Amino acid sequence: MSLIHRLNSQSAQFDAELRTLLAYEASEDASIEHACAEILHRIQHEGDTALLDYTQRFDRLSVDQASALEISKEELVAALNSLPAEQRQALEQAAERVRRYHEHQRTETWTYTEADGTVLGQQVTALDRVGLYVPGGKAAYPSSVLMNAIPAKVAGVAELIMVTPTPDGIRNPIVLAAAALGGVDRVFTIGGAQAVGALAYGTDTIPAVDKIVGPGNAYVAAAKRRVFGVVGIDMIAGPSEILIISDGSAPADWVAMDLFSQAEHDELAQAILLCPDADFLDQVEAAIERLLPTMPRADIIRRSLSGRGALIHVRDLDEACKISNHIAPEHLEVSTQNAQELLSKIRHAGAIFLGPYSSESLGDYCAGPNHVLPTARTARFSSPLGVYDFQKRSSIIQVSESGAQTLGPIAATLAQGEGLYAHAASAQFRLNQS
Amino acid sequence: MSLIHRLNSQSAQFDAELRTLLAYEASEDASIEHACAEILHRIQHEGDTALLDYTQRFDRLSVDQASALEISKEELVAALNSLPAEQRQALEQAAERVRRYHEHQRTETWTYTEADGTVLGQQVTALDRVGLYVPGGKAAYPSSVLMNAIPAKVAGVAELIMVTPTPDGIRNPIVLAAAALGGVDRVFTIGGAQAVGALAYGTDTIPAVDKIVGPGNAYVAAAKRRVFGVVGIDMIAGPSEILIISDGSAPADWVAMDLFSQAEHDELAQAILLCPDADFLDQVEAAIERLLPTMPRADIIRRSLSGRGALIHVRDLDEACKISNHIAPEHLEVSTQNAQELLSKIRHAGAIFLGPYSSESLGDYCAGPNHVLPTARTARFSSPLGVYDFQKRSSIIQVSESGAQTLGPIAATLAQGEGLYAHAASAQFRLNQS
Repeated sequence: MSLIHRLNSQSAQFDAELRTLLAYEASEDASIEHACAEILHRIQHEGDTALLDYTQRFDRLSVDQASALEISKEELVAALNSLPAEQRQALEQAAERVRRYHEHQRTETWTYTEADGTVLGQQVTALDRVGLYVPGGKAAYPSSVLMNAIPAKVAGVAELIMVTPTPDGIRNPIVLAAAALGGVDRVFTIGGAQAVGALAYGTDTIPAVDKIVGPGNAYVAAAKRRVFGVVGIDMIAGPSEILIISDGSAPADWVAMDLFSQAEHDELAQAILLCPDADFLDQVEAAIERLLPTMPRADIIRRSLSGRGALIHVRDLDEACKISNHIAPEHLEVSTQNAQELLSKIRHAGAIFLGPYSSESLGDYCAGPNHVLPTARTARFSSPLGVYDFQKRSSIIQVSESGAQTLGPIAATLAQGEGLYAHAASAQFRLNQS
Repeated sequence: MSLIHRLNSQSAQFDAELRTLLAYEASEDASIEHACAEILHRIQHEGDTALLDYTQRFDRLSVDQASALEISKEELVAALNSLPAEQRQALEQAAERVRRYHEHQRTETWTYTEADGTVLGQQVTALDRVGLYVPGGKAAYPSSVLMNAIPAKVAGVAELIMVTPTPDGIRNPIVLAAAALGGVDRVFTIGGAQAVGALAYGTDTIPAVDKIVGPGNAYVAAAKRRVFGVVGIDMIAGPSEILIISDGSAPADWVAMDLFSQAEHDELAQAILLCPDADFLDQVEAAIERLLPTMPRADIIRRSLSGRGALIHVRDLDEACKISNHIAPEHLEVSTQNAQELLSKIRHAGAIFLGPYSSESLGDYCAGPNHVLPTARTARFSSPLGVYDFQKRSSIIQVSESGAQTLGPIAATLAQGEGLYAHAASAQFRLNQS
């Protein structure tokens, strides 16, 4: 098995090879679907009783009453105070930068008045209450807490409820510290499909929310899909991806390490490099070989790179942009001297990192933009998580008496054409008799 | 069976009665699911062959080759020219007003530069290609063509592909005229799950799109749900709803007719009136009784009102707003003298119609705002269809050399805390040695 695939865009097999490389289909697991359906049904109908039962069964966490599942605000603050100074400061600086960036995303209410006094517009309001799922165990990332909580609070969400499983009662202080910094209002130690159900339907203890966001395992993802409609949900993420467009000007070691930083997430993660300079591709391959043994997560990186990674020799940077637009990567690094120029050629990507100093890892933690990004080519039609995901709009229509005289006949004509006579009459009733 | 339910918010049973009134669950039909899965699978793997087969089977439309399923631009223009002058003018005026309103919704790219030269922002781009589903038969509404097509074109979608079934080859000239006015680029006479599959996966004839919007029957809805992820989709609409908050100041006939204009859509449509004045509720009930026999769609209206409609006596307008926020109606008419004042108390509604002259029917056709609105309480977390549904965002991150020195240590600290050492190294590689 090679260290990483080498492809050439001029090869006759390139299109087929690229298709194979990108192929990824989220599989649906019937047993997970079945288990989730049952869990959600019980939570909806038995509430706290079922919630306590599942929490004991899956997390080996036994409490007398559901209220004991809540972590108090004081405990969150204590967790923050318990962090080493350097870690706390890094978390605070990240939170501050993320907040500053997201404040640019807030949408405001607007209206305009027409000559006849008719007012049209859009009222923008925050969601009332949002649930934030935070995985337990190894995948408990404090940075994710910040990236999900901060846009919600910037949007003006009144109540942000975090749920996170604590198997065997073990709590993660950095995650709780991030909750304190992110402005989370209440935290409950529940997880899995049962936590999703409790947030969607509400129980005596867990308040029902309007939307559920945050990553989770296959059970959490399946449960979120099932409650969609009862509540809003964010996107269901696929494996993480990085695509690097390079002109060979940055050090090969930087590029290799950026590929690693994606590959270390998961053996299904995808790391691809596009470059018109074959020598540079050789240098990156050599750097991969040299640096890989130094990495604590070398095994995962090796499996990811050999399975789904690729160094692709392209004709030129123009072609690199075209291939990148086809792939619509979650993370795109434009590691070239003319990065700014290439930006106008990039149509589809979750986040675009311009220039050699913009490593993806800076964006993952503290540059400011969100790290929850569209995967699996969905950047063709979707966007990073943002403040806009926690606001919604209502159209405003205030027709003046005079406006009703102009609009009424138009509406009546069109309504009659569609066979909707009450619609027509309703418009005609507003016409002044003269 | 009563003409329409009468409820009182002061009754001890009110909460339970309201819950029963609002109860609606979209049922999942296993046979539809099964049929859709098979249709999508065949379209994905057999392309045009399967598409021709299903179109012959379901629409009794036989053509030699798939290219014969396309309606030319000339035919669209001819359909527009064939309309009676009054109808054409109404359609043109509606299109113009809808366009003007939606131009306010366009989002623009923004960036800001930090003191150390780091640039952060968000690049906003339109979707490349969008599919618009338009039902055939009775539910073929030209107004829906405008409401879906215009925001897509205002967003800058390069190619808008409309599909609409033409059973037995019968085409609806008003729908084709609306396509011409709405700026639709190509039209194909296909429908059902097979049309959704063709748009999602592409065939030799039908180009693959990035998002599919527009209403459809249960097969279309099920197929859209299944292809979600491969492409984006708009919301799946439930039965239409109107809620009217009245202080008794508008004529009872207007209010009754506005209730009808929702009820005539469908026997599952929901029309509810909230008013603190019991006498006025009596007047509206009398108006319903008197006006109902005059309506061409009286049977549907009667079934809708007696099944899911209600006249609710509330304590005051404040309570009316609270109940309305709980219901989060698709259409909300605030038919009061102080409508503008009440607006700040309204948190959840698809469209808010203020004052007695703002009948929902004016908004349905020509006021300007979109008539595709969140139903079934989803206005708590979602918005009217808009230009923003056809644009997506990419984060822009251009870290300067100096910025990398500030951000690198923060990212490295947080990455180490999460056990992601390649992330840390990738940030540290950018630190200047000194």
